[in-house]
Amino acid sequence: MEYHENDPLETDNSNELSRIERLFDELFPICRSITGPGLRKSLRLMQREIPLDIEGISSGTDVFDWTIPQEWHVHSGRLVGPDDQVYADFEETNLAVVNYSEPINQQLLFSELRPHLYSIEELPQATPYITSYYERNWGFCIPHDTLVELPKGKYRAVIDSEFVDGELNYGHTVLEGETDQEVLLSSYLCHPSMANNELSGPLVMALLYNRIQEWDEQHYTYRFVLCPETIGSLTYLSRYGDHLQEQLVGGLVLTCLGGPDETLKYKRSRRGDARLDRLVDQHEKNRNDIIVRSFSEMFGSDERQYCSPGFDLPVGQVARTVYGRYPEYHTSGDDREFMGFNSLLQSVNWIEELLRKFEYAGVYRNLEPHGEPMLSKRDLFPTVSEFAGDSHRDKTSSETDAVSRDEFLKRILLVLQYSDGDHDMIEIAEKRDLTVGELLPIVRRLQDTDLLEQEQI
Amino acid sequence: MEYHENDPLETDNSNELSRIERLFDELFPICRSITGPGLRKSLRLMQREIPLDIEGISSGTDVFDWTIPQEWHVHSGRLVGPDDQVYADFEETNLAVVNYSEPINQQLLFSELRPHLYSIEELPQATPYITSYYERNWGFCIPHDTLVELPKGKYRAVIDSEFVDGELNYGHTVLEGETDQEVLLSSYLCHPSMANNELSGPLVMALLYNRIQEWDEQHYTYRFVLCPETIGSLTYLSRYGDHLQEQLVGGLVLTCLGGPDETLKYKRSRRGDARLDRLVDQHEKNRNDIIVRSFSEMFGSDERQYCSPGFDLPVGQVARTVYGRYPEYHTSGDDREFMGFNSLLQSVNWIEELLRKFEYAGVYRNLEPHGEPMLSKRDLFPTVSEFAGDSHRDKTSSETDAVSRDEFLKRILLVLQYSDGDHDMIEIAEKRDLTVGELLPIVRRLQDTDLLEQEQI
Amino acid sequence: MEYHENDPLETDNSNELSRIERLFDELFPICRSITGPGLRKSLRLMQREIPLDIEGISSGTDVFDWTIPQEWHVHSGRLVGPDDQVYADFEETNLAVVNYSEPINQQLLFSELRPHLYSIEELPQATPYITSYYERNWGFCIPHDTLVELPKGKYRAVIDSEFVDGELNYGHTVLEGETDQEVLLSSYLCHPSMANNELSGPLVMALLYNRIQEWDEQHYTYRFVLCPETIGSLTYLSRYGDHLQEQLVGGLVLTCLGGPDETLKYKRSRRGDARLDRLVDQHEKNRNDIIVRSFSEMFGSDERQYCSPGFDLPVGQVARTVYGRYPEYHTSGDDREFMGFNSLLQSVNWIEELLRKFEYAGVYRNLEPHGEPMLSKRDLFPTVSEFAGDSHRDKTSSETDAVSRDEFLKRILLVLQYSDGDHDMIEIAEKRDLTVGELLPIVRRLQDTDLLEQEQI
Repeated sequence: MEYHENDPLETDNSNELSRIERLFDELFPICRSITGPGLRKSLRLMQREIPLDIEGISSGTDVFDWTIPQEWHVHSGRLVGPDDQVYADFEETNLAVVNYSEPINQQLLFSELRPHLYSIEELPQATPYITSYYERNWGFCIPHDTLVELPKGKYRAVIDSEFVDGELNYGHTVLEGETDQEVLLSSYLCHPSMANNELSGPLVMALLYNRIQEWDEQHYTYRFVLCPETIGSLTYLSRYGDHLQEQLVGGLVLTCLGGPDETLKYKRSRRGDARLDRLVDQHEKNRNDIIVRSFSEMFGSDERQYCSPGFDLPVGQVARTVYGRYPEYHTSGDDREFMGFNSLLQSVNWIEELLRKFEYAGVYRNLEPHGEPMLSKRDLFPTVSEFAGDSHRDKTSSETDAVSRDEFLKRILLVLQYSDGDHDMIEIAEKRDLTVGELLPIVRRLQDTDLLEQEQI
Repeated sequence: MEYHENDPLETDNSNELSRIERLFDELFPICRSITGPGLRKSLRLMQREIPLDIEGISSGTDVFDWTIPQEWHVHSGRLVGPDDQVYADFEETNLAVVNYSEPINQQLLFSELRPHLYSIEELPQATPYITSYYERNWGFCIPHDTLVELPKGKYRAVIDSEFVDGELNYGHTVLEGETDQEVLLSSYLCHPSMANNELSGPLVMALLYNRIQEWDEQHYTYRFVLCPETIGSLTYLSRYGDHLQEQLVGGLVLTCLGGPDETLKYKRSRRGDARLDRLVDQHEKNRNDIIVRSFSEMFGSDERQYCSPGFDLPVGQVARTVYGRYPEYHTSGDDREFMGFNSLLQSVNWIEELLRKFEYAGVYRNLEPHGEPMLSKRDLFPTVSEFAGDSHRDKTSSETDAVSRDEFLKRILLVLQYSDGDHDMIEIAEKRDLTVGELLPIVRRLQDTDLLEQEQI
Repeated sequence: MEYHENDPLETDNSNELSRIERLFDELFPICRSITGPGLRKSLRLMQREIPLDIEGISSGTDVFDWTIPQEWHVHSGRLVGPDDQVYADFEETNLAVVNYSEPINQQLLFSELRPHLYSIEELPQATPYITSYYERNWGFCIPHDTLVELPKGKYRAVIDSEFVDGELNYGHTVLEGETDQEVLLSSYLCHPSMANNELSGPLVMALLYNRIQEWDEQHYTYRFVLCPETIGSLTYLSRYGDHLQEQLVGGLVLTCLGGPDETLKYKRSRRGDARLDRLVDQHEKNRNDIIVRSFSEMFGSDERQYCSPGFDLPVGQVARTVYGRYPEYHTSGDDREFMGFNSLLQSVNWIEELLRKFEYAGVYRNLEPHGEPMLSKRDLFPTVSEFAGDSHRDKTSSETDAVSRDEFLKRILLVLQYSDGDHDMIEIAEKRDLTVGELLPIVRRLQDTDLLEQEQI
């Protein structure tokens, strides 16, 4: 009776899929950076799927230990050889220019140029993705095959960019549930033409937004945040950190959710025993589609900010084909085909299932805690006294399906006995080697008969 | 030096045994139910062994989520066939009538009668024991061999019973010890002619009452409770639950303490780490006569009420041949022979030994906690300096029994070092892989020399 | 990068070694006891290496459960046989007279004398070391070979000793560090001519005093205590116990630190999870030069007093060739050669390394806890963005030493993320299977850039 989402291939996801594919194709070519017009345009496109409020904070504002950088506006960039051939061109791929390059228009000898060229020897046909945010610099990224063929002589490097006082932008919204306790879903928008390690997160978020909206019941309030990585989540925390510390019961940073890997990777929150951490532990023990990673692997995405010791929020991270563990990472090889839309959909299903279980994983209160409640008057009691052990229950015996009634009653007693405000549903399930998914129908039934109430813990 | 009770076969238990056998023979034929004259009569018979105060609560009184049912008075019951043969007769066995049957006096076709007949296909010669407490119904219980031979035709079903406003009764008393901290011993009286799963509990309780009364020292106050199962313990809790929450340091529900099984089964309290739970864990690790069961096996006896989240008392359950795990359970096969009096006696010995150790399992206070006390002036110190390691103790060397003196001193130091109000004797023993039984002589010796005092924790 | 002391054989320890050898030769012949002139003389000799304040408490003073005994002054002792031969002579070895013997000058038959003679059958050529502190007695210690050859007849036993009202003495001093939180180093002076089980402790303490004085940085204040065993540490606690309870963060009793054993033995504090206990656990897991012993082995040295429940100080014990585990223990065989000076030096190196790590094992506070600090502006950030995972860090990429930069950054993030006032450096290291020694350079670097501060916990 474990709660399972349908397999994506068996249900009709064609509608959500086609909308997401279209959105991808519009977002992919935009030259995003941690600030600037590319980011703003991307956030506005995302509003088609999620009603984001877009906010901005001025360049130069101090954010904890950091300062909001100026906006980077880039118009063009070309590297022209002594043979007048164009060896790198921003028009062809925005990866060609090192992200956040300062403007340049200069003739250089190859030896002067060389320190400004980036390539990957191991992937000789791929263009790397390189940034230089916090140290003024400039450069071009080219395939290694191109690099080794570059002729001697004078080159012209032209990058038409400017640094402008503007703002850093992010978008956010909430889907209100029965309580104002919140679950955070956060992802980033800041890399230029990258698929798995950029657009997979926002697109999965869009699909989850629509799925949750269609749930019959929604206990928690869900908060959706899209921001540039690191400086963006820091900025968000500077405005909403106190609110999150009061309201958050769990959260997920969404990153790298496409690609060929066959399992979901969950990275624990810093505290390591947040409710969501423990729910995933239980899931991992019973299924083989999730692998749990330690927070102390250290590298990662915005969970590093959400979980920093000053906030210590109960936020984990989910990924599928993980940053830094596939060769195409941070190169032109991280594209539409590498990401794969079916891969995204399966990630959405996995995460939705996790969130559904999380809705029931909390702490409950037995409303008749003195002795066992009288189950028969609520029609909760199997009608065969034999199944009730030796305890004089309240109905006449009759032949029936022994195993399932017996187990059903045991689960009812289990949930009632430990719903004392001290145990959450994860711990309760484990007392009989069950899962939250297996207790979910029991919890619903007991709520319907006013024997159980979820606590705000 | 582990504390062991004598084997029952080696000591003279003939006196207690003969009294208990006589009491059994008087109690067995009585038609008990959860209320009514059979229960009252049984409680009065029990007063011969335990000076029970018998109390009553009126029918119709609300008890937590339940209501005290009316008394059931049954005078006779017969099922007469079309051939005028009597196929079920309350006079022959009180199991023949479904317990708590409403009155009936009616002619019925076999097809109308059939839903009111109960038998067990797998035990074709046994009469089952069936109840219908909280839903008005009537019925007869017969051997399956009889059922399959019943002739077609019209039957007369006669049950002369009535539901009467009266009361629910229970009996209780205490044996006062040195402190008013209490140990609860609780069992039930409510099944009609059943032996292991009915009379074994009260009879073991009677024997324990007499054993404890004869102890040289009795630290705790012992509370003895006999009540109908479930509704009876709920009623008891409604009156004495607050008192128990304040005073109880441990407790045992006594059930199914006879029968052929060779080991005692201890079912943990709900909290799972009550002192008695941990004492039995230690016992189980060192001996093979006790098997520990989890509370989350869920079915059971009145520990389900005592341990409900509103009370959460430190009460476990002991059984020998456990309800629901032997085929004769809840049938006429659960009789005098099945139960066995030697089996009862061995259960008494096991439980008495457990209680004796529990008396010493608590938290103690070293009364000279600053540095080690000077043992020699209290004649506690072995007289050979070699055994004291390198610590300049206080006597002249001489040849002596090295091992035992050395170990004796180590145990004295162990108990003194950890009797700090934070560790109980179970934890202290485990620091050197010992048991409470092995430290018991040390504790007594240190109490006698005013170095140790038991705390009220 | 684990912090290692140099091997003693490779560094020039000749100076410290020769001073210590000379001191040993002066201390060894002195007839010490738990009080008296031998103890005072020894303390004064120790002042050459450690500026001890020597204090005294009058005989007869009550100390917790004990009373300071009178001083024992012994001038001579001889056992003369019927053949006028001298069979035991205090002039030859102070072990010949039972320590704390009352005066005697008497002729006795062999049968009267026999109970006052001590020897060791298993070590027939060794003279045992025997005491009788708290029961008035007298005796002679002789080799078993001598005992069995003693002629029949009248003996004269002469011991010229007296019990004098005086005082019990101890010496102590502190080396002040950055904070007034203290680390205790304690050893004993009270056995007469013994090497491993007497002088090894004070000599190691002298070497440690000089080593710590030469440290570049010293976080804690180090307290050095030399006292007679048991009664001396009890007396010290009666005066300074409250101070130690307030100030002590860790401590070591030094005992038996020479001898042939190849490993250091660490005996846990009573609480078992003091910071020093956990640091040694980590050390033991990663190296094979330390063996950890349980406190509940019970016998030992002054840690038994420091850890008694009324004080419960975080004090462990270090030994090398442990009391009671070598045959020469408490005999004339425990001499200069058995102890060995290189063995002492290696013990000093081990303990110094432990203390160095302990200086960094405490709780730290990340001074920029909201989000991750901006590492680049502090020159803490590796300059290749690839190594930083997917998090938009702040420098331009360039080829460099991947592994070490990556790991260096992970360790920086590790220390920053968990320096929250709740985790000490031992726990932090274990999150990535590292040791405090491996994090030590990181901690220093982060302290230098004002990102980290040690807490007083």
